[in-house]
Amino acid sequence: MDPQSTPLVDPSSPVFRAHLGGKLATLATQPLRDAADLSLLYTPGVAQVSRAIAADPKLAATYTSVRNTIAVVSDGTAVLGLGDVGPLAAMPVMEGKAVLFKRFGGVDAVPLCLQTGTVEELVDAIARVAPTYGGINLEDISAPRCFEIERRLQERLDIPVFHDDQHGTAIVVLAALANAARVVGRDPADLDVVVSGAGAAGVAVTKILLRAGIGHVVVVDSAGTLHVGRAGLPPHKRELASLTNQRGVAGGIAEALVGADVLVGVSGGTIPESAVARMSTDAMIFALANPDPEVHPTVAHRHARVVATGRSDFPNQINNVLAFPGIFRGALDSGARKVTEEMKLAAAYAIAAVVEHPTADEVVPSVFHPGVAPAVAEAVRQAV
Amino acid sequence: MDPQSTPLVDPSSPVFRAHLGGKLATLATQPLRDAADLSLLYTPGVAQVSRAIAADPKLAATYTSVRNTIAVVSDGTAVLGLGDVGPLAAMPVMEGKAVLFKRFGGVDAVPLCLQTGTVEELVDAIARVAPTYGGINLEDISAPRCFEIERRLQERLDIPVFHDDQHGTAIVVLAALANAARVVGRDPADLDVVVSGAGAAGVAVTKILLRAGIGHVVVVDSAGTLHVGRAGLPPHKRELASLTNQRGVAGGIAEALVGADVLVGVSGGTIPESAVARMSTDAMIFALANPDPEVHPTVAHRHARVVATGRSDFPNQINNVLAFPGIFRGALDSGARKVTEEMKLAAAYAIAAVVEHPTADEVVPSVFHPGVAPAVAEAVRQAV
Repeated sequence: MDPQSTPLVDPSSPVFRAHLGGKLATLATQPLRDAADLSLLYTPGVAQVSRAIAADPKLAATYTSVRNTIAVVSDGTAVLGLGDVGPLAAMPVMEGKAVLFKRFGGVDAVPLCLQTGTVEELVDAIARVAPTYGGINLEDISAPRCFEIERRLQERLDIPVFHDDQHGTAIVVLAALANAARVVGRDPADLDVVVSGAGAAGVAVTKILLRAGIGHVVVVDSAGTLHVGRAGLPPHKRELASLTNQRGVAGGIAEALVGADVLVGVSGGTIPESAVARMSTDAMIFALANPDPEVHPTVAHRHARVVATGRSDFPNQINNVLAFPGIFRGALDSGARKVTEEMKLAAAYAIAAVVEHPTADEVVPSVFHPGVAPAVAEAVRQAV
Repeated sequence: MDPQSTPLVDPSSPVFRAHLGGKLATLATQPLRDAADLSLLYTPGVAQVSRAIAADPKLAATYTSVRNTIAVVSDGTAVLGLGDVGPLAAMPVMEGKAVLFKRFGGVDAVPLCLQTGTVEELVDAIARVAPTYGGINLEDISAPRCFEIERRLQERLDIPVFHDDQHGTAIVVLAALANAARVVGRDPADLDVVVSGAGAAGVAVTKILLRAGIGHVVVVDSAGTLHVGRAGLPPHKRELASLTNQRGVAGGIAEALVGADVLVGVSGGTIPESAVARMSTDAMIFALANPDPEVHPTVAHRHARVVATGRSDFPNQINNVLAFPGIFRGALDSGARKVTEEMKLAAAYAIAAVVEHPTADEVVPSVFHPGVAPAVAEAVRQAV
């Protein structure tokens, strides 16, 4: 396609019209009508509040916006499927995410788009501005940098730090898999799972499945299955290899899928029909690449009993928005200092439980189901 | 006073009730009702906007919130009269400021409170998050660090960086002085001005008065007048000494005020009546320390024809809110890359001009006068 013949901006299109002037604004929660209001909200009244917080910093949770405000942080290095487009091009995505946080979780989220740099530089900048926020949602930061940035921020800060591309995806995949296993009548502990992709989502999906007691997991990247005998793996893949593939399955995606029960595609590539045709009779295929699933749903349905994608125009949309608003709602409400593994598992099962009678076409609730975020938030609060 | 006997928090008081949960929230500017809205505001639609901005970063001004959003940045080292209370205790002030930006200028301002550190560290952190914003309002950062932080950010960033404690105060002082000179029938070029205080506000007031063509300025700090012969001055005071006091006035505030026409107090100290009694017959006293003016208005009126303070309960309140909302409104609208000296002067004269018939009791408009911010914004746009 000739880029010259594809105008990138169509000002009259619904998408560009919806973005005109941005999607996010600020709102004062108190009226400012006259000098009396001014003296309450600003000087001299505000000095009383500052003085009180200086004496007891915990009061900031009660008398400032910190408790309900999170930063949606990106350096724009892995935006959607677009790659490293930089902080300005990440802004529409981060604003959209902030809108979702407000709409579904009542969380005041603000974008924070950073000029990229070393892990050290990003961690320093985020940590320095962190007093402003009750939590940090990391977003669209390239792997493997995202792992170290999250880990170091978690060590350094006493507020929840959550890389949504990892954990949001993982939580919703686990929710979907829990219900899909019910639909096909299988015990999750017996399932053979293949995770295609060893980036941010692949790592987190694999780890949450292991913690949830899934029987056997094999991770496949573009060079084949991860196993302890494979040379030249970077640290995050070496760790995955040590945690998975106890049977030592070698080869590529086709070999890995022989007899497998579950395929979780988080790779962005394409998986041929001949490979998925060799899965077990109870196969479940979650092909999450957007906009083009690794296996088209029509193809997947020929070989699987449950099919899920990342798309809204097919049943079973695996969408992070089922998780992150409730996760942060619950974490902020409870004053949690981190999002623990227990909270993530609890969130996944809470999402699954919103679907009262799971079917092959409904293993996760609609993103607009009003019960999801409150159920997730409550599960997170209980798990603190 | 025994702090134990002074409860710092009175939850039922109007001030603390107005601060419950904070004063600032986010607001989505577009409805998010259903899957169609979601596909416009978030995936897949948002990818079109990100792709367009990646190709042409200037489009971020049109299709994101960056253009209308500024950060109100503080490290909490010089908050109101409270001193170094830290970033959390600065939050209520920055939120209040953000509310004022929205109310008076239609600017979406968000607090950004930083763990303090070296000048280098603060500049790095602010510069790294700067892509998120259309401008940076620095606030309540201790002198002399504030001067270097502002200067280095201005050099490094291509968006307006404005330290309000300096320039907001200076602009409103000049506005008030322009009208006060009219009231007493004096030519500003002939005025002898004494600035008491050589901190952030004192430096900026002095510089704008010089640029506005005021006749003679003497700056006084706690050790006496600044003059080129005084040893041991830090760089910002050495610069002021070189720019002012051509007559070489020595001594303290009492000596400086002999025959002076204008006193601008931005020191926080107290100036004795015996000193102001020696000013000229057309004296103008702007005693801006809050909550206790350097000269009480009742005392000042015995010796001056025009008296202004920082307080709302006396006439002629010198309040930065007359300046900063319109300054940023105009700068953002015009895509200005900095707030120039011309823009500051234009803003000052625009504020002065809002008062059609200045009197001794009205040299500046009310902060609630609806014409102020639009007039300032228009003057700034014209001065770009």
